[in-house]
Amino acid sequence: METDSPFLLAAVSLLSALQMGILARRVGLSRIAHKVVPPAVTGPPEFERTFRAHQNCVECYPLFLVTLWASGMFFSEAIAAAGGLLYMIAREIYFNGYIKSTKKRLPGFYLTLAIFPTLSLLALIGILRGILHKYFHIHL
Amino acid sequence: METDSPFLLAAVSLLSALQMGILARRVGLSRIAHKVVPPAVTGPPEFERTFRAHQNCVECYPLFLVTLWASGMFFSEAIAAAGGLLYMIAREIYFNGYIKSTKKRLPGFYLTLAIFPTLSLLALIGILRGILHKYFHIHL
Amino acid sequence: METDSPFLLAAVSLLSALQMGILARRVGLSRIAHKVVPPAVTGPPEFERTFRAHQNCVECYPLFLVTLWASGMFFSEAIAAAGGLLYMIAREIYFNGYIKSTKKRLPGFYLTLAIFPTLSLLALIGILRGILHKYFHIHL
Repeated sequence: METDSPFLLAAVSLLSALQMGILARRVGLSRIAHKVVPPAVTGPPEFERTFRAHQNCVECYPLFLVTLWASGMFFSEAIAAAGGLLYMIAREIYFNGYIKSTKKRLPGFYLTLAIFPTLSLLALIGILRGILHKYFHIHL
Repeated sequence: METDSPFLLAAVSLLSALQMGILARRVGLSRIAHKVVPPAVTGPPEFERTFRAHQNCVECYPLFLVTLWASGMFFSEAIAAAGGLLYMIAREIYFNGYIKSTKKRLPGFYLTLAIFPTLSLLALIGILRGILHKYFHIHL
Repeated sequence: METDSPFLLAAVSLLSALQMGILARRVGLSRIAHKVVPPAVTGPPEFERTFRAHQNCVECYPLFLVTLWASGMFFSEAIAAAGGLLYMIAREIYFNGYIKSTKKRLPGFYLTLAIFPTLSLLALIGILRGILHKYFHIHL
């Protein structure tokens, strides 16, 4: 383990949960602006893009938490936390872009796509190193 | 860290996962009752409200887990676990209300909205205290 | 606690996150094949089944992570990790089946349904044992 008191990972997780709450709130405000009453999820294109932007963030969020914590606990907490902040920026760019047009979601989307394999690779290195050490007594 | 064997947090997490499973099952039963064959997600208003009530719980669930564990590990496990049980009650009220009418989802919705910032604030206090102690050697 | 360096649980979590990323990618490829431009989520039946198969995996994923870690940390890491790999196979069967037809989603669905209560039961045993020991000084 990199750390036994992962305050930075916890802080980034809490911040990202706050961001998710704010994005959900923005869907709610879009409902009001475009008069889309729940449980409807269809309406003017801008509302549908806002709704789908949030859904995509919902889909990504557990994957983000797994890669954040796996890379932070088993490789480097500071690098993982920095990657986590970058992920939050990527999602903000994605969400704001997607509201404007389907095409404008792409920069934030590609940035997200770059962060996931990076954090995953760091996590993989840390986990493999740990498994070699714990089960095969090989210390790299 | 508040605890190194967070049995209460694990118990509440497991219970809440069970609740999520039961809510998913209730969507399945609503499909049967209203003859909405997968992959369709549109149908009679009551089915659509049931479906959306579950979706909202799905969206909230990772945020709940983050705030539950962050407040429980870094502030107080007992308070976080109690907040977690309250969250489950809030979701039950929300789900049952939403099935009846869109408006009746609101009491459970507002109760959920009250629990998230409370757990988040406790988590924030614990995390900031931990960061001050670990990185700045300030013991509050 | 069963373990203080849960490399196997981390490895399975990371693998399952990768699987979720691949399933999301397959929805994207299905969008292209069936010319369903975001934010639309309706289109030819095969696309809709693919989309819903992924959504179901998204709904299940946090429940999977909770039961994987609860059973792995409090009962047996090796058994939980094996259950986690089985879960991934179940989801693959489910997804591939659902793309073919609504009915063919069922084998993978039932296998998933079998894994959840199994891991949950193991977790429950471990957690109850822990609570009895920690709070009631009863050592089973």
